[in-house]
Amino acid sequence: MKIPEILIIESAHKPGSLGKILTVIGEAGIVVEHLNALRRDQDQTIWEITLEMDPETDHGVIDKLNELPNAKIIGRSDRIMDRHRDGKIRMTSRLPLSSIQQLRDIYTPGVARVSLAIQKDPTLQWEYTALRHTVAIVTNGTAVLGLGDVGVAAALPVMEGKSALFAKLIGISGIPILIDEKDPDRLIDTICAIAPSFGAIQLEDIAAPLCFEVEEGLKARLDRPVMHDDQHGTAVVTLAALINAAARVDVDLRDSVVGQIGLGAAGIGIARLLRSYGVKRVLGTDLRDYAVERLERSGGEGRSLEALMAEADIVVATTGVPGLIKPEFVRPGQIILALSNPDPEISPRKALQHGAIFAADGGSVNNALGFPGLFRGALDACATRFTDEMLFAAAHTLASLAPADALVPYVLDPEVHAKVAEAVREAALGPASRGTMHLSI
Amino acid sequence: MKIPEILIIESAHKPGSLGKILTVIGEAGIVVEHLNALRRDQDQTIWEITLEMDPETDHGVIDKLNELPNAKIIGRSDRIMDRHRDGKIRMTSRLPLSSIQQLRDIYTPGVARVSLAIQKDPTLQWEYTALRHTVAIVTNGTAVLGLGDVGVAAALPVMEGKSALFAKLIGISGIPILIDEKDPDRLIDTICAIAPSFGAIQLEDIAAPLCFEVEEGLKARLDRPVMHDDQHGTAVVTLAALINAAARVDVDLRDSVVGQIGLGAAGIGIARLLRSYGVKRVLGTDLRDYAVERLERSGGEGRSLEALMAEADIVVATTGVPGLIKPEFVRPGQIILALSNPDPEISPRKALQHGAIFAADGGSVNNALGFPGLFRGALDACATRFTDEMLFAAAHTLASLAPADALVPYVLDPEVHAKVAEAVREAALGPASRGTMHLSI
Repeated sequence: MKIPEILIIESAHKPGSLGKILTVIGEAGIVVEHLNALRRDQDQTIWEITLEMDPETDHGVIDKLNELPNAKIIGRSDRIMDRHRDGKIRMTSRLPLSSIQQLRDIYTPGVARVSLAIQKDPTLQWEYTALRHTVAIVTNGTAVLGLGDVGVAAALPVMEGKSALFAKLIGISGIPILIDEKDPDRLIDTICAIAPSFGAIQLEDIAAPLCFEVEEGLKARLDRPVMHDDQHGTAVVTLAALINAAARVDVDLRDSVVGQIGLGAAGIGIARLLRSYGVKRVLGTDLRDYAVERLERSGGEGRSLEALMAEADIVVATTGVPGLIKPEFVRPGQIILALSNPDPEISPRKALQHGAIFAADGGSVNNALGFPGLFRGALDACATRFTDEMLFAAAHTLASLAPADALVPYVLDPEVHAKVAEAVREAALGPASRGTMHLSI
Repeated sequence: MKIPEILIIESAHKPGSLGKILTVIGEAGIVVEHLNALRRDQDQTIWEITLEMDPETDHGVIDKLNELPNAKIIGRSDRIMDRHRDGKIRMTSRLPLSSIQQLRDIYTPGVARVSLAIQKDPTLQWEYTALRHTVAIVTNGTAVLGLGDVGVAAALPVMEGKSALFAKLIGISGIPILIDEKDPDRLIDTICAIAPSFGAIQLEDIAAPLCFEVEEGLKARLDRPVMHDDQHGTAVVTLAALINAAARVDVDLRDSVVGQIGLGAAGIGIARLLRSYGVKRVLGTDLRDYAVERLERSGGEGRSLEALMAEADIVVATTGVPGLIKPEFVRPGQIILALSNPDPEISPRKALQHGAIFAADGGSVNNALGFPGLFRGALDACATRFTDEMLFAAAHTLASLAPADALVPYVLDPEVHAKVAEAVREAALGPASRGTMHLSI
């Protein structure tokens, strides 16, 4: 996993100065993520250059930059750390509190009226508390980003990030809940014990296969929506991207053979959703036997990497292993989504060079497109669980809102999330009100 | 427990109309809490009258009001319920999220930098997350306000009220956590399991004696501040009030015999803090034997109600039983704080009539004066627990800030809470940095 490092570089105001800096960076094998002119004086410019760096080594780039005649590293920016200082989220009161009368209305004695009303009719808790707007974001810190088992303390900034997205994109209160526990039963017991505090439960960054057992255990015991985002949120956004990719090159998604490389939480989630969506054949490969067995139990077919590449019409890779897909594996006419971030299993350019009809990487599939609208829709419908109809509704909506030059819509567009929420809400209410069966995830 | 009921009454614009309405209400034994003229036409006024009503009966007041010639009840206001609709609190993002660069800084990939930094040095979690500003507000719903065991769903509006106060008064994120559990070990295990999510733990509205066991168990296992507000928060505000009451009538608090009527969570908390403060003799009475035994184990002395009233120089009552202290029990020269809300064990007026030198009721002692500054100060000091020095510092600060005509300061003054927090922070840091012993609560 690469992480951003921000250099502050003073460069002489001469033709070619910036080019030389960027060339040195490029030759060290480092990607420039962002570039910003902080200040421009008479004869020099201060650049803020964000690099995708390996946390272990700078590949000598710092020394090489300092050797340039017209450039000088004058610092490293703590912009990212600074933005995280004191945390990214705060609970706030929705009501003013500037008079004793307001205090007596929202606290004692007034609040007793609300408590008694809820005691008499517990369904009123959904109307007179924030429950219908509150989702627990639960992790045990075992599969955080691409970093692995970093523990719950190191997972908290990521959970706060999810909470900030919930708040900004769809008005949900996301509450980070850190549980330093790897035993499935104790995890399930703890989450069930605190479940009355939340309208729904989002599981996050829990490693496979523990994540499967925990999600299934919670769904069996709770009457509130539970979703492991790494599985189903990612699957929804991937399905949206695949719907658009297939349509662009006039391929029938359901009649295609889909090959899923990597059967961790995301891979299993994608394979499962595609099968439920009607894709007749889903192949899968993974180094871990239990992962392939899990796929096969749900109707998929295990393959070697080579056999999968030789047979699949559409390839989806979620391995976290850059360059895993050798160009010579690519079959002419294949659709390839290599989703690992920031470095894909094969670059779209190389895949296309070797005959792929369509190729994209993980930059085009952001899972923050999925979970806000999915939870908002489920809560608005007072759903007791997520169903595949709700996931399909989200995927179709995302697919339909993508601009012509992208597979999915712009992630920061609040309209997109509102429309996903509305589609999910309708899917949750529709079949139930017609008395038909739901397929539960 | 009485709760507010708001009547909307149309009254003729004639001399004596309002007086007659209020007389009818008064004769029914109902107290007017608030009165507001909503609208005034040519010949009539619409009044919004907030009454302290029994939830079970209106004592016929509605019928009697409708019989008045110049008054008509035209509705009941849902102002309080309306203010609670959709809940009182929301999580918000402290950072803007309007560009992809901002998203990449606070979410992936930027957040990985913060996670790795915390993984390497876990103390950084206190700097780069909201942990130092986040307090769990934990209840099992067994002793909510004066309502008793109403369950966790009905307790949520009260916890949201605490959270709103935390947010407005001192900038802390209070997270309501509802745990439907009465077994102390399971309660402790659950709270410990989620404790990494919070900078501190506030226990709230958990019935005695369970509350004592849970608090002690948590303090033994957690290295973060834990406080049962009903015990220690209330005790801090009561101590502040007693310091001022004693000073006003020139009595030495430490040399006085204090009698504590009612040994639930609040009573035990007050008795314990007074003993620790240096009050040499604390008497206590309660109908429950275990409560008296608990008092005696901590150096207090059990008494009958009558014996206590005959011996105590200062009487503090927290029973929830209106009128429990008969006027004839009052000894000349006694200080009496009858704290039950909204109806005290004896009215200050009656107590004074029967010889008390000073008397006050619960309206003068609001526990919302304590917990915001106590938690802010503990978190600012990175304290691992609350000590009595911290509680004394809060009480002294509250006492010193009270205006001349009150025992404690105005609860909605943010300056007051900031000063309490600063005093608590200094008390937490001071003795530790001088290497002296702390008395833990």
